[in-house]
Amino acid sequence: MKILVLNPNTTASVTDRIAAAARAAAAPGTEIVAVTAPRGLPYIANRAEAVLGGAVVLEMLAEHQHTVDAAAIAAFGDPALGGARELFDIPIVGMTEAGLLTACMLGRSFAIVTFSAGLVSWYRECIEWHGLERRCAAIRALDAGFASVADVQDEHRARLVALANKTAAEDGADVIVFSGAPLSGLAATVRDEIAVPVVDCAAAALKQAEALVALRPRKPQIGAFRRPAAKSSTGLAPKLARWIARE
Amino acid sequence: MKILVLNPNTTASVTDRIAAAARAAAAPGTEIVAVTAPRGLPYIANRAEAVLGGAVVLEMLAEHQHTVDAAAIAAFGDPALGGARELFDIPIVGMTEAGLLTACMLGRSFAIVTFSAGLVSWYRECIEWHGLERRCAAIRALDAGFASVADVQDEHRARLVALANKTAAEDGADVIVFSGAPLSGLAATVRDEIAVPVVDCAAAALKQAEALVALRPRKPQIGAFRRPAAKSSTGLAPKLARWIARE
Amino acid sequence: MKILVLNPNTTASVTDRIAAAARAAAAPGTEIVAVTAPRGLPYIANRAEAVLGGAVVLEMLAEHQHTVDAAAIAAFGDPALGGARELFDIPIVGMTEAGLLTACMLGRSFAIVTFSAGLVSWYRECIEWHGLERRCAAIRALDAGFASVADVQDEHRARLVALANKTAAEDGADVIVFSGAPLSGLAATVRDEIAVPVVDCAAAALKQAEALVALRPRKPQIGAFRRPAAKSSTGLAPKLARWIARE
Amino acid sequence: MKILVLNPNTTASVTDRIAAAARAAAAPGTEIVAVTAPRGLPYIANRAEAVLGGAVVLEMLAEHQHTVDAAAIAAFGDPALGGARELFDIPIVGMTEAGLLTACMLGRSFAIVTFSAGLVSWYRECIEWHGLERRCAAIRALDAGFASVADVQDEHRARLVALANKTAAEDGADVIVFSGAPLSGLAATVRDEIAVPVVDCAAAALKQAEALVALRPRKPQIGAFRRPAAKSSTGLAPKLARWIARE
Amino acid sequence: MKILVLNPNTTASVTDRIAAAARAAAAPGTEIVAVTAPRGLPYIANRAEAVLGGAVVLEMLAEHQHTVDAAAIAAFGDPALGGARELFDIPIVGMTEAGLLTACMLGRSFAIVTFSAGLVSWYRECIEWHGLERRCAAIRALDAGFASVADVQDEHRARLVALANKTAAEDGADVIVFSGAPLSGLAATVRDEIAVPVVDCAAAALKQAEALVALRPRKPQIGAFRRPAAKSSTGLAPKLARWIARE
Amino acid sequence: MKILVLNPNTTASVTDRIAAAARAAAAPGTEIVAVTAPRGLPYIANRAEAVLGGAVVLEMLAEHQHTVDAAAIAAFGDPALGGARELFDIPIVGMTEAGLLTACMLGRSFAIVTFSAGLVSWYRECIEWHGLERRCAAIRALDAGFASVADVQDEHRARLVALANKTAAEDGADVIVFSGAPLSGLAATVRDEIAVPVVDCAAAALKQAEALVALRPRKPQIGAFRRPAAKSSTGLAPKLARWIARE
Repeated sequence: MKILVLNPNTTASVTDRIAAAARAAAAPGTEIVAVTAPRGLPYIANRAEAVLGGAVVLEMLAEHQHTVDAAAIAAFGDPALGGARELFDIPIVGMTEAGLLTACMLGRSFAIVTFSAGLVSWYRECIEWHGLERRCAAIRALDAGFASVADVQDEHRARLVALANKTAAEDGADVIVFSGAPLSGLAATVRDEIAVPVVDCAAAALKQAEALVALRPRKPQIGAFRRPAAKSSTGLAPKLARWIARE
Repeated sequence: MKILVLNPNTTASVTDRIAAAARAAAAPGTEIVAVTAPRGLPYIANRAEAVLGGAVVLEMLAEHQHTVDAAAIAAFGDPALGGARELFDIPIVGMTEAGLLTACMLGRSFAIVTFSAGLVSWYRECIEWHGLERRCAAIRALDAGFASVADVQDEHRARLVALANKTAAEDGADVIVFSGAPLSGLAATVRDEIAVPVVDCAAAALKQAEALVALRPRKPQIGAFRRPAAKSSTGLAPKLARWIARE
Repeated sequence: MKILVLNPNTTASVTDRIAAAARAAAAPGTEIVAVTAPRGLPYIANRAEAVLGGAVVLEMLAEHQHTVDAAAIAAFGDPALGGARELFDIPIVGMTEAGLLTACMLGRSFAIVTFSAGLVSWYRECIEWHGLERRCAAIRALDAGFASVADVQDEHRARLVALANKTAAEDGADVIVFSGAPLSGLAATVRDEIAVPVVDCAAAALKQAEALVALRPRKPQIGAFRRPAAKSSTGLAPKLARWIARE
Repeated sequence: MKILVLNPNTTASVTDRIAAAARAAAAPGTEIVAVTAPRGLPYIANRAEAVLGGAVVLEMLAEHQHTVDAAAIAAFGDPALGGARELFDIPIVGMTEAGLLTACMLGRSFAIVTFSAGLVSWYRECIEWHGLERRCAAIRALDAGFASVADVQDEHRARLVALANKTAAEDGADVIVFSGAPLSGLAATVRDEIAVPVVDCAAAALKQAEALVALRPRKPQIGAFRRPAAKSSTGLAPKLARWIARE
Repeated sequence: MKILVLNPNTTASVTDRIAAAARAAAAPGTEIVAVTAPRGLPYIANRAEAVLGGAVVLEMLAEHQHTVDAAAIAAFGDPALGGARELFDIPIVGMTEAGLLTACMLGRSFAIVTFSAGLVSWYRECIEWHGLERRCAAIRALDAGFASVADVQDEHRARLVALANKTAAEDGADVIVFSGAPLSGLAATVRDEIAVPVVDCAAAALKQAEALVALRPRKPQIGAFRRPAAKSSTGLAPKLARWIARE
Repeated sequence: MKILVLNPNTTASVTDRIAAAARAAAAPGTEIVAVTAPRGLPYIANRAEAVLGGAVVLEMLAEHQHTVDAAAIAAFGDPALGGARELFDIPIVGMTEAGLLTACMLGRSFAIVTFSAGLVSWYRECIEWHGLERRCAAIRALDAGFASVADVQDEHRARLVALANKTAAEDGADVIVFSGAPLSGLAATVRDEIAVPVVDCAAAALKQAEALVALRPRKPQIGAFRRPAAKSSTGLAPKLARWIARE
């Protein structure tokens, strides 16, 4: 099976980290197709950028949907996830969604550990969107700056491990979810240094995409997630506009 | 004071309805600047279109922000509302948000009445985003098609009134919120035919924008809604890209 | 339009502060009618006093209802707000309610800052009554005594500003709501010293009352907020008893 | 031990029904002191009347507090319950509170059955105040009028039984709570005609008051329910005013 | 009336403490039948042990049900409480359930104070099962080990008192619930050293069992708590198997 | 990798259905080890039986834990799931848990469709235990009896399909979860007859177990899910007793 791993950011080195973490978790026979956003922001870090990145997600899915069995949106906060599920026929998972749902099966409460304090408020909103606030023990972020988003996991490795152990001990978090695409792959390298299990969102997203493909879910024919009726538009990316117009 | 009433849809006749309803509620001295989206969809009717419309909202705000005292995003589900509050310095309200919050002051529970059953699931999500699900008695929609979105309130006037009365009686809704920009202005014309108070979202948005301007709120200097640091981008609308880059 | 600003406490100097803050926010053409409770407590500071003050609120509304277009109950915790909405025909807002709902449009989470720790538990109950607990980041109170409730905002100005900045920074509150009628007017004078926007409840109540008048909501003819059927009573204030008896 | 059963309504025949139901459930050695409100409404049936009745509750408790070991507020919606707990030193339970909490021990979900549709919205608010909404399967009310509130349980006996069985079957309610003081005593007489257990609120209130006395809880010395500091007042009932003034 | 006080643990000295606390609170004429688990764990201290203890609870109830009027399950977390209510005809209360519900009548928020930090996560789950999370201010536990579970209340008396006072002051808890069967009887001896009321779960369970007996609730004939249809089984305790088989 | 699929019921033919559905979804290289409970009930259908079945689950895991990489508890309501996660070192998923979490990735709201109305109340409790009530649109059950639990999916195929389509249309459920181990395998055969996607809980459990193995989560060293300290016991199954005693 082929899984599209879609980075809505324009930073290709982050795509590489995501793809590597996904590949390490893939089942035999799963092929990963990793793509980087052709336009947008270097990395999505707030609600405004998630809206802009969300539009790019839909453009990228319109481009690649017919070449894969499922897709994973691999950025903070699952931009455009709900809309993508309405519009396209293949199963689509969000990286944050996959990380949180997987964490639910490893304990009673999870904590999110991330690298920038500016992300916390938006992350809380994201958890509430998934209806999982009762399972969340804490959202903890470093208060340090960083030299390069692509390498933030190397730069702050020790601090991220310490923060994970702190939230496990102080907030009673049963599981740690490292969040933010730039942290992809970190969980595997620090597994034995953290006192509770750690979830890698990129790996989780890949496994959940595999799970959905295996279940062979039908595209809804009725309800909120059926494909919308054809509609004209102005000024959208051509492939996306044609898909929306059902041309 | 000048209030930007921003229609993220490309249908100018809907903008006219919104602007008229807002004007009818405006205080002396309030000027309404109504603009229609230069690109996008004729009307936003699902999550996918809200993402695309949300990107257009940010472009329009980048264009018009310096000419007004506050802005109202006048479309279903408040596309890009959170992001707009992060990015820009003026107060910004959403049309749905304003309608729901205003309704809270007229009773204990509100019901949303709208014209298309396809909107219900997404509307529930919107109410949850605002944290108001405990105040919502019901979301009720016509199951009829319509000839023109701009004139749906005329075409289905009697059915919308009947549905409003039905939800007041059966769901115990203390207040009705007519939702969807195309219903702007309807509340005033059917006021005496419905047994409970009715909120017009366009009028509510205008009044709430006036309220925010009067309170003179400061742009946050810290936290989730401070203006983000400068960031480069690729392929965004030029004025928006420059605002994001702080150029 | 005429707005009744009703202070259910017997301290006239607090009424003056409330009225001044409301006037500063009023639209052209809005007249404020400020009245002080003729009996009761000097200021309401707990649940028991809110019950007693609530009865006074209903007496005052029975007295003044026909002379105004709307009313604002200007005391801690919105005493008798629900009952007043049932009993009377004009729109009625609570000062706390207005402050909280307005704050929702300036960020994702608000914090209440008040001057007495004894108010916190009751305030939490009030926020829950409005169904807004998910939007509340914190309730913070000074632990200092005060010489005069009417002048507490002058006496503790610096400490209130510091507490507001502390809750914005530590609790992630996007907006500050100064609560308690004695703090009316403070927000405007300290606006530039606090890093996030600040809501003045008296100003917010006035603007929300204006908004309701502009929307021209009908008195409910059915349901929980229709005017109750005529009922006899014993020992109530005469004007209120007559209104309840529909004489 | 002596338990004050306090009817905040002025209808003495309802007091008799409450007292009889309480006596039937009392332990050996428990004496019931039943009192009727000296002023107020014949029966409390909405939020406005609950505020007025609440003020009477505090007056009655100021009068009788030193003659009993505990008190039960025996009216719809527990008027002034929170305030009474702040102000007085003896344990105080509400009739609705006692009925709901007791019902929780007889199943997973309860339904309230009452005699007037006008009470439903307010009842929901009361359940939320107690934080028990997740345990509530339904609130069901007759839509019939009644000749006399004191005899409504005789007049509508068959319809109330039918409604109780209907909500057990259709809403999945594991327990029925007959609500409203006028229904006191009904549960015992219809016990064998309803397919699930039925709670009598007057009996439950008596048993819970006995339980609190047996546990010998201390009056809080700190926090939200400690006795408030002395405060002057104007125009309150003399005994209550003196208690508030700590004279 | 006879109340079965059932200790699902095998430690008889804890049974003695529970029985003594219950007896001290009993009404005249109430007889307490205290039994200790014939098999299982010395004390239940996690979810796994609660499952195993729960099976023992059902065996013990099958053995003793016909000799008593009601039963109290006297262990951490109310093992098998829901199942016991389905299977047997007598009223059954849980010790934790009774403590929490009783605490709700003594303030707005309770805190649980217990002797082992390992119990906190499971306790939170238990509170959520009862739907009472909104009434819970905190769960606080000693972080000390202990020499003997039966005597932990003597060994750590001073620390438990200090922790109770700390949570009342810092978490705003209006009531303290000492939790865990080994703490039975402690509340009465430290009552005057703690600034807010304290609930003894064993005493509360006895009083609630008395209350249920006095209300004479019918065994449900329909719904989730009616007695299940006869079913065969393999390898269960003989008396329990026969009750399940309705032999 | 080897996955233990553990049927806590004694009906071997149901185990066969579960194993077949799991195998159909397995990745290359995944081996399924299916075992049937050696003692207990033919099928778990209420809370009481879940407690008894839960004790059997722990016995079975003690027996088989060292021979597999992960385990799935394949019965209604995930008996003993939390306790199993505490006690054992391998990843363990519940069949209901896996079905619900997987359904969350296929839409916004799921509905459970099952074959016996007696299961609904308990199922609601199970959903709340997972904290997923906001994602649940409905729980719908046939009201028909059945000849054999093992063949109920054949006997009632048409009615289950009709009920699934009905809940999708009327309750707005975006996804259907067929629940109860006896329905394992049904989803695949009726996929094209139901208008929205359908989740098979056995297949979902297998995929989620695979996902957890691929993520290589560490056994918690601290907190609620670390392995409990050694403890003696009486009368437990020998292998389980030894594991608890850490012998």
